[in-house]
Amino acid sequence: MPSKNDVYVGIDLGGTSIKALAVDARHRILAEEKLPTRASLRPDRVIGDIAGLVIQAVNAAGRTRHNLRGVGIGAPGAIDPKRGVVHEAPNLGWKEVPLGRDLKKLLRVPVMVDNDVNVGVMGEHALGAGGKTQEMVGIWVGTGIGGGIISRGKLYEGSHGGAGEVGHTVLVVDGPVCSCGRRGHAEALASRTAMERDVRAAIKAGRKSVVLDIMKRKNKPRMTSSVIHAALKKHDPLMREVMQRAEYYLGVLVSNMVNLLGPERVVIGGGLAARLGESFVAPIRATALEYFLRPDDLRRVKVVPAALGDNAGALGAVILARQRLG
Amino acid sequence: MPSKNDVYVGIDLGGTSIKALAVDARHRILAEEKLPTRASLRPDRVIGDIAGLVIQAVNAAGRTRHNLRGVGIGAPGAIDPKRGVVHEAPNLGWKEVPLGRDLKKLLRVPVMVDNDVNVGVMGEHALGAGGKTQEMVGIWVGTGIGGGIISRGKLYEGSHGGAGEVGHTVLVVDGPVCSCGRRGHAEALASRTAMERDVRAAIKAGRKSVVLDIMKRKNKPRMTSSVIHAALKKHDPLMREVMQRAEYYLGVLVSNMVNLLGPERVVIGGGLAARLGESFVAPIRATALEYFLRPDDLRRVKVVPAALGDNAGALGAVILARQRLG
Repeated sequence: MPSKNDVYVGIDLGGTSIKALAVDARHRILAEEKLPTRASLRPDRVIGDIAGLVIQAVNAAGRTRHNLRGVGIGAPGAIDPKRGVVHEAPNLGWKEVPLGRDLKKLLRVPVMVDNDVNVGVMGEHALGAGGKTQEMVGIWVGTGIGGGIISRGKLYEGSHGGAGEVGHTVLVVDGPVCSCGRRGHAEALASRTAMERDVRAAIKAGRKSVVLDIMKRKNKPRMTSSVIHAALKKHDPLMREVMQRAEYYLGVLVSNMVNLLGPERVVIGGGLAARLGESFVAPIRATALEYFLRPDDLRRVKVVPAALGDNAGALGAVILARQRLG
Repeated sequence: MPSKNDVYVGIDLGGTSIKALAVDARHRILAEEKLPTRASLRPDRVIGDIAGLVIQAVNAAGRTRHNLRGVGIGAPGAIDPKRGVVHEAPNLGWKEVPLGRDLKKLLRVPVMVDNDVNVGVMGEHALGAGGKTQEMVGIWVGTGIGGGIISRGKLYEGSHGGAGEVGHTVLVVDGPVCSCGRRGHAEALASRTAMERDVRAAIKAGRKSVVLDIMKRKNKPRMTSSVIHAALKKHDPLMREVMQRAEYYLGVLVSNMVNLLGPERVVIGGGLAARLGESFVAPIRATALEYFLRPDDLRRVKVVPAALGDNAGALGAVILARQRLG
């Protein structure tokens, strides 16, 4: 029986930290807890940490274990959402870990697991930039490019539960090599990793840029969103050029999704969108509109930045848990 | 109340001919009727022709009008399936024609309308190459490239009912111009129209080929599937080269759909697949497999030619009518 003390916990499991949000039945955030991910330890130790963090969040929300109705988790890598198994998560070093089952044993409540990007897209759809749309596509730009499709109000799963790999669709046949080994994927053209590759290659070829100085000053070995942001603020011509090219590819990717899937809205998420917001999305939108097939899509389809920031994953994990619980 | 005399009629409305199939409740074909499309007349005259053809098919099936439960139509161009309106069909010269409503008035039974490719994909899914899959993608290669997505056993409609435009997704950013005016779409790279453009350009540039001779002999102003077939049988090197390139692009397109949508099966249909069958699909499959992201998709996902030939559209129209009738 539903009670006003009911509490759900959403977990965003990342390679460096684990975040928990305790929310009530109306998805109001009651408490937030965080823990570093001890990825060097065995998976069952990390799962123990997650269980502890869930209880901590429930207590911080002023509830008890008896009020906990369910837990949702967004986990990185390839997930089997039906069985709650993490097939392979390179940045955790996990292979075939029965995360859902093991956490359920510890907590004795239903536990749902899905891919972190899928869960983030669900969060934005239900509580963020999704508006009241039934048909939405999310494109998450970070070190890679991930995505998720919402159809008839629910996550589009495909036959294996892992649909939505927008980053692994070809935009340039025989283009640059992707992290997955194939050529010309969107991820190989427009992710932060692709941008960093292009910036480094241009500098090696003699172009001037402040990017490497900023990385040194910020003590970042990689070209993170904050490095990109700082270089753009300094009007670094190379950074601007590389960014514009990536945004062009992302605009084409958005149009592919719109022409193929007919969504009402496309949400651009991930680290770059969180940091740069509308200034990142505006050029993507401009290109996408040029490529829309249907004239009425020009006014009908909205291309917008994600709205929930760091909370998208954990909130989406709650949505996941509640949808699957029925 | 269902009766063993119940009959459904599926219509495949094309620019040159109209085909009707009368089928029973088990989708067994009872009768087939055909009529040339009098596209030069006003739409209401053509709609009158369709009504006459439906009655003719019902009679040929040994049934009467009272046994007719519903009519489905696959129509070319942009359709609003909810209202049964043909927005725009260039090869009929139609704009905003209320085909569903007008035909319903004449026949006094439910009439459902959808795009011809969507309806063909539904036919192949239910009665042809679709097997028992719940998740399928159809790619129809002809003068253009059309497609349809089946999800959870039903046509994926998107927010406007017109989803599935696989031919209008970019495979080569800034590639050749498409019929829609944008660059690099699959249709601009791998349709019959694209192949003909490439063959003609190569001949103009001095390459030898039997293609133009075959077109003259067959009295075909365009490079039809039968012309392509004849040139391939003569081992025309240019035709083979252009065909291989198109098949490569189609393989990449298949992989994009598989990585994005996670279907169990991809069906290749349309005129070329009908004429060339497995010899057309085998190289497409080989390329697609190289681009699949998930290792288990290599054995799980089948890429197959369509199986219903010319009947896919009319049979799919019956499936459409019956699904929407509930």
